[in-house]
Amino acid sequence: MSLSSKLLENAVDQLATLPGIGRRTAMRMALDLLRRDVPEVQRFAEAVRKLREEVGHCEVCCNISDTPRCAICSDPGRDASLVCVVEDIRDVVAIENTHQYKGLYHVLGGVISPMDGIGPDELNVGELLARVDQGGVREVVLALGATLEGDTTSFFLDRKLKERGVDVTMIARGISVGGELEQVDEVTLGRSILDRKPYAQSVRR
Amino acid sequence: MSLSSKLLENAVDQLATLPGIGRRTAMRMALDLLRRDVPEVQRFAEAVRKLREEVGHCEVCCNISDTPRCAICSDPGRDASLVCVVEDIRDVVAIENTHQYKGLYHVLGGVISPMDGIGPDELNVGELLARVDQGGVREVVLALGATLEGDTTSFFLDRKLKERGVDVTMIARGISVGGELEQVDEVTLGRSILDRKPYAQSVRR
Repeated sequence: MSLSSKLLENAVDQLATLPGIGRRTAMRMALDLLRRDVPEVQRFAEAVRKLREEVGHCEVCCNISDTPRCAICSDPGRDASLVCVVEDIRDVVAIENTHQYKGLYHVLGGVISPMDGIGPDELNVGELLARVDQGGVREVVLALGATLEGDTTSFFLDRKLKERGVDVTMIARGISVGGELEQVDEVTLGRSILDRKPYAQSVRR
Repeated sequence: MSLSSKLLENAVDQLATLPGIGRRTAMRMALDLLRRDVPEVQRFAEAVRKLREEVGHCEVCCNISDTPRCAICSDPGRDASLVCVVEDIRDVVAIENTHQYKGLYHVLGGVISPMDGIGPDELNVGELLARVDQGGVREVVLALGATLEGDTTSFFLDRKLKERGVDVTMIARGISVGGELEQVDEVTLGRSILDRKPYAQSVRR
């Protein structure tokens, strides 16, 4: 696609670097931006620039935070001896929305993925181990995605954490609440049979 | 979704204003931007800001252009008596890619859509009529989308252009080249029967 404007071509190129956005969608976005008022587009560009330039991370849990210590880590009402390991801020939001968890978090910033050149050193693993070494942590809950990379990362973390004498648990895998058995994939169903629990323990009212 | 960072929330809000982007995708984009180097994100923000602040339009055809007159309108090899009316630059690119058109364009910047508050005054209609009034235009080809809004706009332009004694044509509608009859929708197929042409005229070798 050769365009009559370098400015447009440049903007389309940049928008197309966003995840999941091809050149056709990027063009639609650029034309949408062109139809807006100048101050509105300036606010857009500014929000993106400032995000990268000024955003900080919580010194305790490594989550994105505007303050040195995030709101969750600063909350005295939460159980600091319980640490839930997640991939990124989206998982923190998802777990917070369940209102079932009252411990703290540790944000890894990704999962181990040799194919993408991401090893433990690219993640906030050292920070997690240092946090456990400082003492006060009783249990670490692994809450990573049920993917090959997530499982690899959980396996690696379990080994490193066990050495330090801390309890390591993992969030339950099984059929979804409200799910029909015939629609569950074989691996999940098979695993949910192997991981069966006494009925009295399974029913929560 | 309440986040631990105003900067992140602000960036997600802005990214979610892009067409077709919800808050979930906007969050994925923001986290992707956060993983990049600072200069890379600055280039991204700059490209968007500059697009809106500095982009210009061709004084003849109203297409997006970095020069006062675009490359197509400045080309002496093209037929200036033939003007193809399109909605936006994407349609210019699409028609140019066919290599079947050697006239000039006129970019309306949209189509008439009372529901969205877009009337002829919001489009480059005045510029088109002034261009015809200046003389030298023999035929105007309407190449708008085959939608209710596109048809309304074509009807409106035909009336205004006919008054000025210029030929008004419309691009052909019918079954796609390579298309199977059973897969064509009824309206298109019905129309293609009504608009049938002598076989000798229809076959191009």
